[in-house]
Amino acid sequence: MKPTQANADSMTADSRDLAESADAVSLLSAWGETLNGHFRRILGRYPSAPSRLMEAVEYSLLAGGKRLRPALVLESWVCCAGGDRDKPSLAVLAAAAALELIHTFSLVHDDLPAMDDDDLRRGRPTNHKVFGEATAILAGDAMVTMAFETIAQDAPANLIGPLVRELAHATGPAGMIGGQIIDMDSAHPPSELGALQTLHRMKTGALLTASCRLGAIAAGASEISLASLDRFGRHCGLAFQIVDDLLDQTSTPQQLGKATKKDAAKGKVTYPMLIGMEASVAEAERSLTTALESLNSFGPEADGLRALAKFVVERKK
Amino acid sequence: MKPTQANADSMTADSRDLAESADAVSLLSAWGETLNGHFRRILGRYPSAPSRLMEAVEYSLLAGGKRLRPALVLESWVCCAGGDRDKPSLAVLAAAAALELIHTFSLVHDDLPAMDDDDLRRGRPTNHKVFGEATAILAGDAMVTMAFETIAQDAPANLIGPLVRELAHATGPAGMIGGQIIDMDSAHPPSELGALQTLHRMKTGALLTASCRLGAIAAGASEISLASLDRFGRHCGLAFQIVDDLLDQTSTPQQLGKATKKDAAKGKVTYPMLIGMEASVAEAERSLTTALESLNSFGPEADGLRALAKFVVERKK
Repeated sequence: MKPTQANADSMTADSRDLAESADAVSLLSAWGETLNGHFRRILGRYPSAPSRLMEAVEYSLLAGGKRLRPALVLESWVCCAGGDRDKPSLAVLAAAAALELIHTFSLVHDDLPAMDDDDLRRGRPTNHKVFGEATAILAGDAMVTMAFETIAQDAPANLIGPLVRELAHATGPAGMIGGQIIDMDSAHPPSELGALQTLHRMKTGALLTASCRLGAIAAGASEISLASLDRFGRHCGLAFQIVDDLLDQTSTPQQLGKATKKDAAKGKVTYPMLIGMEASVAEAERSLTTALESLNSFGPEADGLRALAKFVVERKK
Repeated sequence: MKPTQANADSMTADSRDLAESADAVSLLSAWGETLNGHFRRILGRYPSAPSRLMEAVEYSLLAGGKRLRPALVLESWVCCAGGDRDKPSLAVLAAAAALELIHTFSLVHDDLPAMDDDDLRRGRPTNHKVFGEATAILAGDAMVTMAFETIAQDAPANLIGPLVRELAHATGPAGMIGGQIIDMDSAHPPSELGALQTLHRMKTGALLTASCRLGAIAAGASEISLASLDRFGRHCGLAFQIVDDLLDQTSTPQQLGKATKKDAAKGKVTYPMLIGMEASVAEAERSLTTALESLNSFGPEADGLRALAKFVVERKK
């Protein structure tokens, strides 16, 4: 799964990879290793940067998250580029790394005392608990610039514009950051399902959808394929958030590696609160079905995405 | 100075503009208006963004700063593209806006309680004093993504990569953000001039140098011109920081629109502290001379840059 020289028997290698892909956990772990390789390459690009800043960036970046988003980027690329997992292009590696940099920056800033004020993340103390608030703010800021820099540095010239536009828009005021503002507004929690869906479409959905779109863009996918992956990403994103809400209510901090039952404590509205546990589970299943249907025009090259979508709904953390 | 259709008598218009440019204050004000026009265009691109977030972004972005950095971008473009101020390209407008978005984000985050904890900026209450810490953090984050988005959206395909690389690198771990980390480390203030210069080269110098480089890149300048503007930018940046240190010591908050004499209070080391007031003034003058010498290969098309360099040293705020 690491970038290698051309494989003499690439059809066999691909088939083996695609067969393996039914196991989402192995897929996430293998792509996670590939990603860490690119992260180490990126981190080596700032030899004159203060070591304290780079330690804080590394601490959160290599903390061993699920790597779901970069896996979605890479599997969307596999799906659209024809399934050759042994040779991910530098463009898709950059896109996957950029996506995870943005996701990690958002966690570091979200955990700050002025935001969600969390002590635990990915099973370890949050960034500001270890490095202090000022460094955590600046480490998050640095990750954003590093995300755009790896795209501009590593992707071919014709892809830089589309990739930067996609990532910036999904992250910015109309995407993730906009969603976070709505989520922080505890005085006006969403009182009905439509408002809650808007919040989630922005706060988590935008980046999950962008993951799929970035992979497709890096593969030079057709407009039709891009639209299919967009739809897949949106419904995966919805399923992801509903399951997140359910897990917050039913898990322990040990299981999740972060504080649980904090939604209710903070007056945040969740799916189970609005429509109940059972209906929430059914809604997550419905989103999964629609996500899988969006891939109907693809063959086994989309098996990785199918496995990831099921993982999103079945995961226990 | 606003983007207009082709001027029938553009040589005359250029000459008039270049004559006017001896007055840096008019130059800053005219480019500032042009820039605000592009900002309004950018701000209109997020109709679905939460209004509270956009208000916080606008509050700091349209607060009427000096607009020195975007003016340097635009004048560097004038210098390398041949002096046609009436028709700034969309690429250079995007680069100038991106630079000011990054500069403004850094002010908003720098002012936070966990950082410099400032109440006053550009003569008004700081962003977090008006909108709260969480919104100020997210508004700063949003400005970074908006900076990269305007480049990817507005610059021609062949310039997006070079512009994004330049801006991301100057902002990130080896540039401005790296410098801020060093500046926050009050336990280890720079004890000699070399260390202080490294700090300033990163914290303020990187972005001022990038301003000049971005303008040159947007103009498609030759490597030789780019190197001249790079040198100009570095020495302008040094002069700027020395004068900043001097103003902090000699001005009132009313004059500067922000807190003064805070360097000493916070244990921060400045030029006057290390080498005295008189030597600092002489050092600023020397930097100005070197900056001006860097422009010797240019004719009157660099008059705007010359005026801005002198303004940097002579300014009273």
